[in-house]
Amino acid sequence: MVMSLNITVRLKLANRPGALAKVLNIIAQEGGSLGAIDLVTATPAYVIRDLMIRFREREHLKELVQTLQNTPEVQVIQVVDRVFTKHLGGKIEITPKRPVENWEDLSLVYTPGVAVICETLAQEPELAYKLTSKGNTVAIVTDGSAVLGLGNLGPTAAQPVMEGKAVLFKQFANVDAVPLCLDVHEPEQIINAVLALAPNFGGINLEDIAAPKCFEIEEKLRSLLDIPVFHDDQHGTAIVTVAGLINALKVVGKEISNIKLVMSGAGAAGVAIAKMLLHAGVRNLIVCDRKGALSRHNLPPEPSKAWLAQHTNPEGRQGTLKEVIAGADVFVGVSAPGLLNREDILKMAEKPIVFALANPEPEIQPEEIYDIAGVIATGRSDYANQINNALAFPGVFRGALDCHAKTINDEMCLAAAYALASIIKEQELSAENIIPSVFNDRVAPVVAKAVAREARRTGVARRVSAGVPGEMI
Amino acid sequence: MVMSLNITVRLKLANRPGALAKVLNIIAQEGGSLGAIDLVTATPAYVIRDLMIRFREREHLKELVQTLQNTPEVQVIQVVDRVFTKHLGGKIEITPKRPVENWEDLSLVYTPGVAVICETLAQEPELAYKLTSKGNTVAIVTDGSAVLGLGNLGPTAAQPVMEGKAVLFKQFANVDAVPLCLDVHEPEQIINAVLALAPNFGGINLEDIAAPKCFEIEEKLRSLLDIPVFHDDQHGTAIVTVAGLINALKVVGKEISNIKLVMSGAGAAGVAIAKMLLHAGVRNLIVCDRKGALSRHNLPPEPSKAWLAQHTNPEGRQGTLKEVIAGADVFVGVSAPGLLNREDILKMAEKPIVFALANPEPEIQPEEIYDIAGVIATGRSDYANQINNALAFPGVFRGALDCHAKTINDEMCLAAAYALASIIKEQELSAENIIPSVFNDRVAPVVAKAVAREARRTGVARRVSAGVPGEMI
Repeated sequence: MVMSLNITVRLKLANRPGALAKVLNIIAQEGGSLGAIDLVTATPAYVIRDLMIRFREREHLKELVQTLQNTPEVQVIQVVDRVFTKHLGGKIEITPKRPVENWEDLSLVYTPGVAVICETLAQEPELAYKLTSKGNTVAIVTDGSAVLGLGNLGPTAAQPVMEGKAVLFKQFANVDAVPLCLDVHEPEQIINAVLALAPNFGGINLEDIAAPKCFEIEEKLRSLLDIPVFHDDQHGTAIVTVAGLINALKVVGKEISNIKLVMSGAGAAGVAIAKMLLHAGVRNLIVCDRKGALSRHNLPPEPSKAWLAQHTNPEGRQGTLKEVIAGADVFVGVSAPGLLNREDILKMAEKPIVFALANPEPEIQPEEIYDIAGVIATGRSDYANQINNALAFPGVFRGALDCHAKTINDEMCLAAAYALASIIKEQELSAENIIPSVFNDRVAPVVAKAVAREARRTGVARRVSAGVPGEMI
Repeated sequence: MVMSLNITVRLKLANRPGALAKVLNIIAQEGGSLGAIDLVTATPAYVIRDLMIRFREREHLKELVQTLQNTPEVQVIQVVDRVFTKHLGGKIEITPKRPVENWEDLSLVYTPGVAVICETLAQEPELAYKLTSKGNTVAIVTDGSAVLGLGNLGPTAAQPVMEGKAVLFKQFANVDAVPLCLDVHEPEQIINAVLALAPNFGGINLEDIAAPKCFEIEEKLRSLLDIPVFHDDQHGTAIVTVAGLINALKVVGKEISNIKLVMSGAGAAGVAIAKMLLHAGVRNLIVCDRKGALSRHNLPPEPSKAWLAQHTNPEGRQGTLKEVIAGADVFVGVSAPGLLNREDILKMAEKPIVFALANPEPEIQPEEIYDIAGVIATGRSDYANQINNALAFPGVFRGALDCHAKTINDEMCLAAAYALASIIKEQELSAENIIPSVFNDRVAPVVAKAVAREARRTGVARRVSAGVPGEMI
């Protein structure tokens, strides 16, 4: 995976004017961008400093270190990859909401006081939403079979992603999320494990589970559990993609019901995006997998693809992606790098919308088509219009938990997409600004409100008795 | 379960001198003990106050409220059981260790930066102890089949106990503990669920699982997992009991190898205590269940009891508890209320040690035997010498996690008991002071250190590579 390298270099410098300036010059010459500089210790003879430096390429680092080592007055003490520093000891902790400082506290939150709460819940289990953490807690469940774009790394290697997700859940939407990386891989085992651990969670976020088993697992769990089950790789991606598309269509002045939309990719994300696009009103939708357009004339064996073949492509078009993209208003790719070139985009309708979401390398590089595309979006943070799941999952679960939802249905997902799109005001909208930043504070509350409203409207919000538990008169 | 009632009464009082004094008089007359008084709001006409009051009996509360309601200048707005107040919204949350405040933070703790951590763990899974939360995180697992003394309440009703335990884990030993209340009840299902969710936990604390299935589950999990599996109802209770006994024997001046010790109760706690007593050097141990002394002449059908029958009771004594207790130096009860009376204790050896640990009502009330017993301990906080598991589990897991232990073996448990006993210095030791308070700051560190030391000595500590992950030169 391509990413820049973030390092911390600890240096011992002679405590003499100009020593630091000399080092900064060397860093600039070697192509490093300097971030913060910390002072660790200083004596009359020397100063120890930590310098945060970013490099585009690993080779430049080696040269920098060598040059520094050869510089008088400079001693390189340590060079550390900052990604590792940020992961030392893990990224989350479990903390008490209220401290236990004395015997009275202890007798209220633990034995013997807690017994009356247990007895109350045995009589009225729905009160778990009020008297336990259930109402604010989500399990992030994976088997590590499709970690990022890295493949089947297993549950131990998946944990850092799940902890990162838990950090975002809390920070963006105050949702408590527990990573649970399962050491079982058959769909039935995963289903049984989730059913076993579900009682005290207000929702289940499935994550990085490979297609096609993710479909079966999600469907089965949805039918058996009375709490939301949401596979973020499917529905989170779909919500943000559709939100971006809603705004992109405004930018180019086209109606969703009139467009021809061609997709590339029929995995977890592709299937969910396609279904939500149909739900959002797209009529002429063609989904391509590796072999070309899915069509009713040539049903694929996989149930999820067969469903798409039967419910999309109304004209029954056949052919490769490069063939069927001709005349399309919108391209949405969740597939593989470099599948398209400038000529393919030139064959599309005027002001084409290109969502090249393959990660980390898109289906076509934005640089190739800036002058001919109406709107371009990618999955990357270094281009405008990043389609990032972190725009969806915190607010979606916040809304679902707020109304004790029994599920997250299609209507709630579509409402989330429209709410997310609405955050960019008409006057702010442009080809480079169709979707908000994940650091926009309004994202999660606006999405949450729409999701909860739609849950109530569609009858999946749960009523928990209104009284204050423990009220005695 | 007997416990005093802790309430908060919200009152609207005329803002006039003497109004509050009148209320306090009424509370005192009705037998309430007053705690804190909060001011909620005040106007020239009235004052709203919250009064925390404790009652021994529920009837007194009704009388108090009636009297207050009949008092001019006083209006009762609300009466709330404080146990419920302390449980609203649950007791724990999942929080980030470091905030994510900008794109750089996000790119380091989540995609794309996190990918290099995932790849590192796929290559070297042991680094999970350093690069994820695993090294500090314990799962508290129950099926809710033996919640406190309340019986099989199921997973939802068990959650408040598990959250309380998570609070104590964090507060006393900085251990992150995740409550997982399972909705499966067959031993094999519980075992499979724990095996599935184990990869990213540094230990498993089994809790409130009924005997005899708890024995099978623990044994199987210990043999299959390479992290500690510790059934607190067994081993936690045993550690604290043995610690108390070590100090009680010092008080009465007897040697552990010479005493006759009679136990009542052969459930989860009883079996574990008996085994640890043998390990600690007790030679003449007789364990009674409901039917009387377990003996090799009359083997019981349950495997755990049969083991005890074969490994205790060297003289092959038979008879009821009341018969075999004659001449005993020590009685340890983990059974049922009121099984013994003053005459039974009079039959014991001189300065008898009586550990009447049945909860909430002990095998014999301390008041009955103050003048004839050498040392008395119970499970209750309202008598001296409370045998409380919270003295053991935080420090035991702290020690096990600190050395990445693969298991918690008998040696580690016995070391924990001796360490716990050692916290009471010789000069502090008395019949009323054989065990420290759970709020003694030294408890968890001292226990942890002994446990880790013993883990290293017995070869179950794990070595994780010593370098700093991410160090580049």
